[in-house]
Amino acid sequence: MRGEFEFINQIKAGYSLGKIGDDCAVIPQNAEYDQVVTVDMLVEDVDFRLEWTTAELLGHKSLAVSLSDIAAMGGEPKWAMLSLAIPEKIWKTDFLDEFYAGWHRLAAEFGVELIGGDVSRSPDKLVVDSIAGGDVPRGKAFLRSGTRPGDAIYVTGTLGAAAGGLRLLESGERPDSGHPHFDLLMRQLAPRPRIEIARRLREIGDITSAIDISDGLAADLGHICEQSGVGARVYREMLPIEPALVDHFGPEEALELALGSGEDFELLFTANVKTPITQDIADAVLIGEVTSAHGDMVIVLHAGEKKYLPRGFQHF
Amino acid sequence: MRGEFEFINQIKAGYSLGKIGDDCAVIPQNAEYDQVVTVDMLVEDVDFRLEWTTAELLGHKSLAVSLSDIAAMGGEPKWAMLSLAIPEKIWKTDFLDEFYAGWHRLAAEFGVELIGGDVSRSPDKLVVDSIAGGDVPRGKAFLRSGTRPGDAIYVTGTLGAAAGGLRLLESGERPDSGHPHFDLLMRQLAPRPRIEIARRLREIGDITSAIDISDGLAADLGHICEQSGVGARVYREMLPIEPALVDHFGPEEALELALGSGEDFELLFTANVKTPITQDIADAVLIGEVTSAHGDMVIVLHAGEKKYLPRGFQHF
Repeated sequence: MRGEFEFINQIKAGYSLGKIGDDCAVIPQNAEYDQVVTVDMLVEDVDFRLEWTTAELLGHKSLAVSLSDIAAMGGEPKWAMLSLAIPEKIWKTDFLDEFYAGWHRLAAEFGVELIGGDVSRSPDKLVVDSIAGGDVPRGKAFLRSGTRPGDAIYVTGTLGAAAGGLRLLESGERPDSGHPHFDLLMRQLAPRPRIEIARRLREIGDITSAIDISDGLAADLGHICEQSGVGARVYREMLPIEPALVDHFGPEEALELALGSGEDFELLFTANVKTPITQDIADAVLIGEVTSAHGDMVIVLHAGEKKYLPRGFQHF
Repeated sequence: MRGEFEFINQIKAGYSLGKIGDDCAVIPQNAEYDQVVTVDMLVEDVDFRLEWTTAELLGHKSLAVSLSDIAAMGGEPKWAMLSLAIPEKIWKTDFLDEFYAGWHRLAAEFGVELIGGDVSRSPDKLVVDSIAGGDVPRGKAFLRSGTRPGDAIYVTGTLGAAAGGLRLLESGERPDSGHPHFDLLMRQLAPRPRIEIARRLREIGDITSAIDISDGLAADLGHICEQSGVGARVYREMLPIEPALVDHFGPEEALELALGSGEDFELLFTANVKTPITQDIADAVLIGEVTSAHGDMVIVLHAGEKKYLPRGFQHF
C-alpha cells in the first residue's frame, strides 16, 4: 500500500504541480513580497485526544502548527482561517469559546488576524483545519530544495521534547502545573512556532534550505535531502536532545525519540559553513553537514560507528 | 442554544474581526489587485453521502463550492489547497485518485492550480476542506454590505434544483444517465461555479452587493440585508424556479425548496436599477428590490398578498 508521501508525490508528478513540496506554497504578490500559505488538518483521536488537552491548548496548537510552517519558509505571518467540523456534544458547551481564546492569544502575539473560516457539523469527531498566510521578501523564501554538499546543518531549540510529552500522555500523565515534566507535556500540547528565529535567519540571509520538524528530524531531513538531491551526515554528540527527555527515558530512548518522532516544531535548516549562525543569534546549533551521497542520511554515533537514519511518522 | 451564524457573529464582534462576513476575505495584494480567499469544509454524512455520489463528483463539488465563493466576490480563481481526513477503508482504494481527477477537471477549466494541502487519517468519516484563492481588481470586490434601498435584486440561473436533486437522492434515486431528472441530481452533486458570469458582472461594474446561494435564497438574501442594513421585497412571479422542480414536486413545494434550501450556487446580487443587467449578458433575472425596512424580507405571492421569508439551512 502506498504511503501518504508517495500519494502526494504521485499527484504532484501526475498533474505537474510545481508549487507543492515546501512547508508553504509561495505565491508572487508584488514587487517587494511573496505570499506564503499553508494548511494543516488536526483530527480528533488521530492528531489529538480531547482527554489529554484543553480547548485552549488545542486552539493554540491549531494555529501554532501553521505558524511553524510560515517560520520554516522564513515568513512573517499575517492572517489565518479556521475550518471546524464540530460534534454536537461539543457545540453545546463553551469548548469553542475557550478554543478560540487559546487560538487568539497566540494570534495576537504575532499580529495574525482571523479573516475567514467555515463551520460544519461532524457526526462524531472534532476536525480542525488551520490555514495561515504571510509575507516573505520577494524571492527569499526558504525552500527545501536549495542546499548543496558542504553546507552546514542546524537545528533550533531541543529535540524530542514533544515526543516525550506524548509518551507521558499515553501513559496517563496529565499537564497539572505541579507535574515534574510539565515542560515536556507542554511541548507536545502547546508548541511554540519559531517566528522570531525565522526573522533573525531572514536578516542573516543565505539560508540554503529549511523545514520545520513536524514528522521527526530524520524524516524532515529526508525531505530536504530528497528535494535538494543531496545526502546528510549528522553527529549524535552534536544533537541538542532535550535534557529532560534524557533524564526521564535514558539516552538511547531519548535519541530514538529525538530522531524518529515528530511535532517538535523546531526549525531544521542549512547554510554555507561561512554564514554566521550562532546559538546566541538563532538559538540554533550545528548538527552535521550536507553530503553529495544523494538520499543517504547517516548518523555518526561514535568515531567510526555510523548507521542510517530511520523514517519518521506517516499517517498511512 | 446559539446557532452557527450567532457563534460566528459573537467571535467576530468579540475580537473585532473586520474581514469576516463575505463569501471570501479580501487581502490587499498590489496596486492592481486584491486577493480573495475562502475555505469550505465538507463532512461525510453531513454535507455529502458516499453512497449518493462518486469520488469524481465529490472532487468536483469540493472545488466548485469554493470557486463559487470567489465568483460571488467578482473574483478570478487562481490557486487552491485541499485538506483531507481519510478513513483507512478509503485510503486502500482508488477513491482518492478519482476524487482528484474530478477536482482537477474543474480546476483545469478555470486555470486553478493545486499549490498545497494536508493529508490526515480519519477514524471514521471522510472530511474535505477546500481552500481557494483568486484575484479581483483593487477595491472592486463584490461585498454583502454595499446595497441601498431602491437597488434591484437579481439572481442567476434557476432556483431550487440542488434541493430537488437532494430530495430525489434522499428518496433513493441515483444519478444514472437515463434518469428523467438526471439534471436535478447533477445540480446537487456537481454544481457549476458561476465564474464566467462573475467576469461579465465585473465588466458591467457597479454591482452593489453579491453572495452565492449556499444556504438558500431567503437566508442568503438575509445575509445581504443584515450587512447592508436594508430590507428586501421579492416577487414570486419573478423567481426563476427550476422548471423540472415544478414538474416533479408541484408549484408550492418547488417554491419552498427554491426559497429555503441551499446549494444552488447561483449568484444573488444587487445593482442600481439603471445598471444594464440582462439575461443575455449575465444569465440573470430581476426578482425584486431593496427596501429601507431594515431586516424585513418579504415575498409578494400575489397582488395584495405577501409574507415574510423563511430562514435557510444552518448546521446548528
